Amino acid sequence: MTRARTTETPEPHLDAGAAASNHPDAPEAPDPRVTRSRQRTLAAALDLVAERGVAGATIEAISARSGVAKTTIYRQWPHQGPLILDAFRAIAPDPPTPNTGTLRGDLVVLLGGLADALRSGPAGALMPALLDASQRDLDFAQLHAQESVRRHQPVLAVLQRGLQRGELPADVDLRELVDRLAGPVFHRRFITGLPLEPSFTERVVDGVLRAP
Amino acid sequence: MTRARTTETPEPHLDAGAAASNHPDAPEAPDPRVTRSRQRTLAAALDLVAERGVAGATIEAISARSGVAKTTIYRQWPHQGPLILDAFRAIAPDPPTPNTGTLRGDLVVLLGGLADALRSGPAGALMPALLDASQRDLDFAQLHAQESVRRHQPVLAVLQRGLQRGELPADVDLRELVDRLAGPVFHRRFITGLPLEPSFTERVVDGVLRAP
Repeated sequence: MTRARTTETPEPHLDAGAAASNHPDAPEAPDPRVTRSRQRTLAAALDLVAERGVAGATIEAISARSGVAKTTIYRQWPHQGPLILDAFRAIAPDPPTPNTGTLRGDLVVLLGGLADALRSGPAGALMPALLDASQRDLDFAQLHAQESVRRHQPVLAVLQRGLQRGELPADVDLRELVDRLAGPVFHRRFITGLPLEPSFTERVVDGVLRAP
Repeated sequence: MTRARTTETPEPHLDAGAAASNHPDAPEAPDPRVTRSRQRTLAAALDLVAERGVAGATIEAISARSGVAKTTIYRQWPHQGPLILDAFRAIAPDPPTPNTGTLRGDLVVLLGGLADALRSGPAGALMPALLDASQRDLDFAQLHAQESVRRHQPVLAVLQRGLQRGELPADVDLRELVDRLAGPVFHRRFITGLPLEPSFTERVVDGVLRAP
């Protein structure tokens, strides 16, 4: 049990807009030192989650690893949970909501994007650490639940549009369709470990659309 | 991030048969001291996984927690991975393969059992720790993959029987159906957190059977 799997945790890519987004009344051009310390903080948080899980990525440890003072970190994040979630958002940014003209087309784009992110992105390897933290820590579980609701907005939006176009029966439970669409992709990535090919995600979409 | 969620890790229930199962040539009645030390070892392993994740449940730590000597532990398990998996099997024993006469009936029993185990059993709360360990540790990932294959035998058996009875098209990919059946249950338990009601698992089964 000693060989560590290499977990890629590249520097999160943050543009100036992202750095300023927590500060709606900040000046247009954010202080580059703030952007740099924010980036170092998020990168250290990801490294520590990869090494020790969320429980090991305390503000204390993130400060020590990044060299960013704890007071500076607390100025941007009230506690550990929102910092960890911001670090994940930086490496797994929200996909745009597609608009291909058909529900099937939109779902194939979204589910293919999810499969790509889970298969090859660093967020995929770190995701179980978030799920694990949610089982251990009620505050983190609450943040994670809010994050899930936010993440599912694009798929709910395309389902809602499909419903309005008559591509789904009027009495369908859209949140249940989210579980039936995304669930098989998660299961294949984390449980069965079979290949996450585009043909698989397309068949999942077709199965749900044929029997919603 | 300080409130710890209570994770129930009851003593694993091990009968004499289970204790002897690793020793096909052991005498009929196992030494009760062996059974007791095995039980203490597995209970300590579960406690430590709940507290620290798989990485924190080393043989060293399990020995210290259980009071069972390391040499005694190594006599039963060559290293940490098989011990952790045995501890999980003790709290989440394999369900019997149902035989209700129809594929739908069998799948409803199996998927309902999975939902119950993930929702209310201690194994559900600890499962993300296993997934997390599989992302960090190649040896553990390999053991976990073998365990998944073993765990899916009942559902593959009922699918195979349904195929033979003509309840599924001849060209269907049975392993893909496993992802499409179990995936939504995992997703609801760990991602969306919506209620895992019997009506949900029944609709998942019906969706897959109407559009396999």
